[in-house]
Amino acid sequence: MSKLAAHTFPADKLRQVSQTVLEALGTPADLATIVGHSLVEANLMGHDSHGVIRLPSYADLVRTGQIKPAERSQISRQFRASSQIDGGWGWGQPAAVQAVHHAIDLAQQFGIAAVTITRCNHVGRLGEYVELIARAGLIGMALCNIGPAVAPFGGRKRLLGTNPMAYAVPRAKGANPVLVDFATAGTAEGKLQVARAKGEKVSPGLILDKHGLPSQDPEAFYDDGVLLPFGGHKGYGLSVMIDLLGGALSGMAPASLPEYGGGNGTLIIAMNIPAFVPKENFIAQAEGLCANIKNTPTAPGFNEVLVPGDPEWLARADRLEHGISLPATTWQRIQDLASELQISVV
Amino acid sequence: MSKLAAHTFPADKLRQVSQTVLEALGTPADLATIVGHSLVEANLMGHDSHGVIRLPSYADLVRTGQIKPAERSQISRQFRASSQIDGGWGWGQPAAVQAVHHAIDLAQQFGIAAVTITRCNHVGRLGEYVELIARAGLIGMALCNIGPAVAPFGGRKRLLGTNPMAYAVPRAKGANPVLVDFATAGTAEGKLQVARAKGEKVSPGLILDKHGLPSQDPEAFYDDGVLLPFGGHKGYGLSVMIDLLGGALSGMAPASLPEYGGGNGTLIIAMNIPAFVPKENFIAQAEGLCANIKNTPTAPGFNEVLVPGDPEWLARADRLEHGISLPATTWQRIQDLASELQISVV
Repeated sequence: MSKLAAHTFPADKLRQVSQTVLEALGTPADLATIVGHSLVEANLMGHDSHGVIRLPSYADLVRTGQIKPAERSQISRQFRASSQIDGGWGWGQPAAVQAVHHAIDLAQQFGIAAVTITRCNHVGRLGEYVELIARAGLIGMALCNIGPAVAPFGGRKRLLGTNPMAYAVPRAKGANPVLVDFATAGTAEGKLQVARAKGEKVSPGLILDKHGLPSQDPEAFYDDGVLLPFGGHKGYGLSVMIDLLGGALSGMAPASLPEYGGGNGTLIIAMNIPAFVPKENFIAQAEGLCANIKNTPTAPGFNEVLVPGDPEWLARADRLEHGISLPATTWQRIQDLASELQISVV
Repeated sequence: MSKLAAHTFPADKLRQVSQTVLEALGTPADLATIVGHSLVEANLMGHDSHGVIRLPSYADLVRTGQIKPAERSQISRQFRASSQIDGGWGWGQPAAVQAVHHAIDLAQQFGIAAVTITRCNHVGRLGEYVELIARAGLIGMALCNIGPAVAPFGGRKRLLGTNPMAYAVPRAKGANPVLVDFATAGTAEGKLQVARAKGEKVSPGLILDKHGLPSQDPEAFYDDGVLLPFGGHKGYGLSVMIDLLGGALSGMAPASLPEYGGGNGTLIIAMNIPAFVPKENFIAQAEGLCANIKNTPTAPGFNEVLVPGDPEWLARADRLEHGISLPATTWQRIQDLASELQISVV
């Protein structure tokens, strides 16, 4: 295949590639399936920055010892509706899936439950976990901190991570959940990587250069620059809270402190609707709101008003039908990794 | 006193004025104290749009029957860590204070707790309630929906409220909590009222006029225009979640549905830190993060990097010392209301 053109694969093929690579890195088969599923799900949902493009950097993290690929997460602390999962510095995704199922179970017992994950590597896309909670019929909330890349509002040095948060709410049978999942930085760092590779500028308001001056050149970020929070002081306030609720409450620490050891300090909350209101009333009102959203007349420049999560569901339907397209460089790096591991993924 | 100049009052004086007015409206003394305290606290914290300026519109809501001033809130539903307070369409502030104390009590029992408030009038400034939780040593989260003023992302009709959310986290003894409290609209409607009164333009990106076109004229909002969410699709996503978690989960309904009857569908969550990590570790890490924030070098145009909540604590210290300044028109309206009620507040 040409090195220049993008390559398009069915999701199953990329799951199989991920499984093979992850097992060759020392991951037990069942954990490799969870991590591979998570990566390909990110591709399907249109968030390629969290997809199989991560395999080479994950391999590096295994080699440096940050990720212990055979380690299994376990419940390390529990008090009624609150619990802590110890990720053991294994893969973050299986730890997060365990936390989700534990949070669902506890919320069904107590009405609401919170589960933190400590010693936790990259959990991937938070939307996956709140979606699992919503598909089980509950309301899901999740947030996590991550290493510094973002300046506090008014500052010009990296202090906060891109600290994402996500929510999901179930709808009527057959409808995808309402899904909100975003970074509290103005842009994800993965999008800067893409712009940098293409030699493109980015929108104003996303980056300060090393002198603290606004820049649209992605290179300025990598040359000791910073990302800015989204929405000014509001996004900044959310990011600080995520550093505290994800970092400090999990025991992993805010990302700017010396005790922070990489990874995602994570908090997952589940709420069981019937503990608060009759479920059928809640679902009917969620459907009513979604109908009102879809029926809102559009502003100039827009063709449609979307329910939060719709862009992801549209991407997923498209990519399930037409496949997932990877840039040639991404596919080449995965092949190079496979060669190093003496396996074949062609 | 001149009608043109602003008038400045000590907080105690405005509490006493509020108490007198609220009692004359039929509010029992103990409830009037809570509502008055809440209004004056908003003034002290620099959020004048939520301060004693509200007294005349509150009086209107009592007259129309929306607010039943003598009604008392009560616990209407409880299941372990989850609970519902029935505000009975009385004052929202005492209902919210009851919900806060109930949430603290349940979180101490279960690690985390959620309390919704149904049949709930205006609760005022959410920051007050999460601050109460943080001062009790717990982590507080709150959100509420409110009547439509904001277009969904890509739309041009009012569908969502300015739907605020707030978080607070305790710090070391003697330090004020980290406090995040904001509307998910780009601006609060109260700020448009101020700009309109002064004949000033507002920043770009806040308003669409009735044709869906961007405007900086506050009048355009009142002429069938809309507010926009802060932060584009991200703030929009938060606002939808607040309409569902505040509106539907409380039983008050999303604001665009026919069953919504005004007021604030409210959700309050409290988390008890020792259920997750040793409290001294958490507090030490919160202090470490706050120190790193304060020590961040400033970007051009900024004199200081502030911890979320610092603007409020600075305003509070200043106003406790120098008094609360009210525009002459605000003070006049309160005097007019007092005359109608045949009481004196001079």
